[in-house]
Amino acid sequence: MEVWFTEDQTSNLKISCKVKEVLYHRISDFQKVVVIDTVEFGRMLTLDDVIQTTEKEEFVYHELITHVGLVTHPEPCRVLVIGGGDGGSIREVIKHDKVQEVVHVEIDDKVMEAAKMFLPTLSSGFNSPKVEIRVEDGIKHVKEHKNTYDMIIIDSSDPVGPAKGLFSKEFYQTVFEALKEDGLFVAQTESPFFNQDLIKNVHDSVGNIFPINHLFCGVIPTYPGGYWSFTMGSKIYDPLNVDNKNISELNTRWYSPDIHKAAFILPPFVKNYLK
Amino acid sequence: MEVWFTEDQTSNLKISCKVKEVLYHRISDFQKVVVIDTVEFGRMLTLDDVIQTTEKEEFVYHELITHVGLVTHPEPCRVLVIGGGDGGSIREVIKHDKVQEVVHVEIDDKVMEAAKMFLPTLSSGFNSPKVEIRVEDGIKHVKEHKNTYDMIIIDSSDPVGPAKGLFSKEFYQTVFEALKEDGLFVAQTESPFFNQDLIKNVHDSVGNIFPINHLFCGVIPTYPGGYWSFTMGSKIYDPLNVDNKNISELNTRWYSPDIHKAAFILPPFVKNYLK
Repeated sequence: MEVWFTEDQTSNLKISCKVKEVLYHRISDFQKVVVIDTVEFGRMLTLDDVIQTTEKEEFVYHELITHVGLVTHPEPCRVLVIGGGDGGSIREVIKHDKVQEVVHVEIDDKVMEAAKMFLPTLSSGFNSPKVEIRVEDGIKHVKEHKNTYDMIIIDSSDPVGPAKGLFSKEFYQTVFEALKEDGLFVAQTESPFFNQDLIKNVHDSVGNIFPINHLFCGVIPTYPGGYWSFTMGSKIYDPLNVDNKNISELNTRWYSPDIHKAAFILPPFVKNYLK
Repeated sequence: MEVWFTEDQTSNLKISCKVKEVLYHRISDFQKVVVIDTVEFGRMLTLDDVIQTTEKEEFVYHELITHVGLVTHPEPCRVLVIGGGDGGSIREVIKHDKVQEVVHVEIDDKVMEAAKMFLPTLSSGFNSPKVEIRVEDGIKHVKEHKNTYDMIIIDSSDPVGPAKGLFSKEFYQTVFEALKEDGLFVAQTESPFFNQDLIKNVHDSVGNIFPINHLFCGVIPTYPGGYWSFTMGSKIYDPLNVDNKNISELNTRWYSPDIHKAAFILPPFVKNYLK
């Protein structure tokens, strides 16, 4: 007998992966949290049947959402990670010696439980003495902190369910206020092929709040269309002005000093709808 | 009733697209040739149930397989296109004023018939006076021509069935001989996530024959993993030395002078297995 997991990527597009074993399956207060072992991608975390991350290719997403911003900020001492309960972003953030403290705010402790039990290569950073874990609402946390963080990473799921508020203009305003006077944030902002209205809305909202505002992209094979965007809003530091020579070796598989530059080079079809 | 087309991208991974209508369905001497109208990607060409191209995102593939090489060669007068019976590559090649003659060698006339009937935005270049169409085996054509072409584009399907020989060392040697003394070729060379052995073999084969040998990449949403590679072998001209200022406006949606540079910037995980 073959077992397959199928995600409805859109109402007209599905991806299906052959499953070796279902490792974790819980209904949390927020969503269905599942870890399956797949033949093609290794272990895979899904939330409400949407693929979040897989062992085979998680490095692209986690390296882009962390290092591009951490390298742009010259002194990223205090970092907030919202979401990202699998731990992959935390693992990358603590590679930077300059990072002294990471506050990790995840609304759903079942995601972290699943990652600790079945995704050890992602959750390996949870025990770092630099990391403080708080199970709470990221929107509330950001609202209650002013002038606190050098960098905020918004490692959310899609803008439905618990993550919906993380794509609003009001939220980006509170992110601006939670950052120190030279702070910056990076958020995952969906597919340039399938979510053009959302990307344009985020781009305009962030552009109205932050002096520096850039979209950058990478390839996430298990996300719809494979091509994925991230948005950076920054008060002072421009990621395009980073001197490659100052980027230290981070032991990465997707990110590199050259990729740092290339990720911001957008094809005309994307540039055109950002105008 | 819903109708879905499903491709087995690997034996452990499937993609499924909702179908509005089956427009063309023929068994040719070589393969099953089908055009369907999908909700997500518009009209789609499949060969033996493998997606070749779709109206929504064909521009990425066709712009990369043509313009990167055509811009690298200062005088690409005579161009050979092998495969690519949908016509998308031809359409892009004839955008270049310097191109005087395009020989299009496609082994399967049913693919061209399907494209002429149902993919008019791709096949629009077939009637250009610059284009000579020959229904024959590309491998044989290349073997029988010496010192003939400025550029050869190998727009093949996957290395199974009729396209298998287009990935062999012997074939690249005949490509070298069919090119003029300053010629270059570009070929599609599969997925950096799923076909690492093939890419490495092609890279080594081409590197043994051509003085200049580069891999470059782009995003093809309907191909496995979304991330896709192309290989350029060149006798004299290096694509990395192209001066952006000399690139004329080509009315493109993926390719641009900046993308020309960015496409060659490979992530560490790809660079590592090419070593």
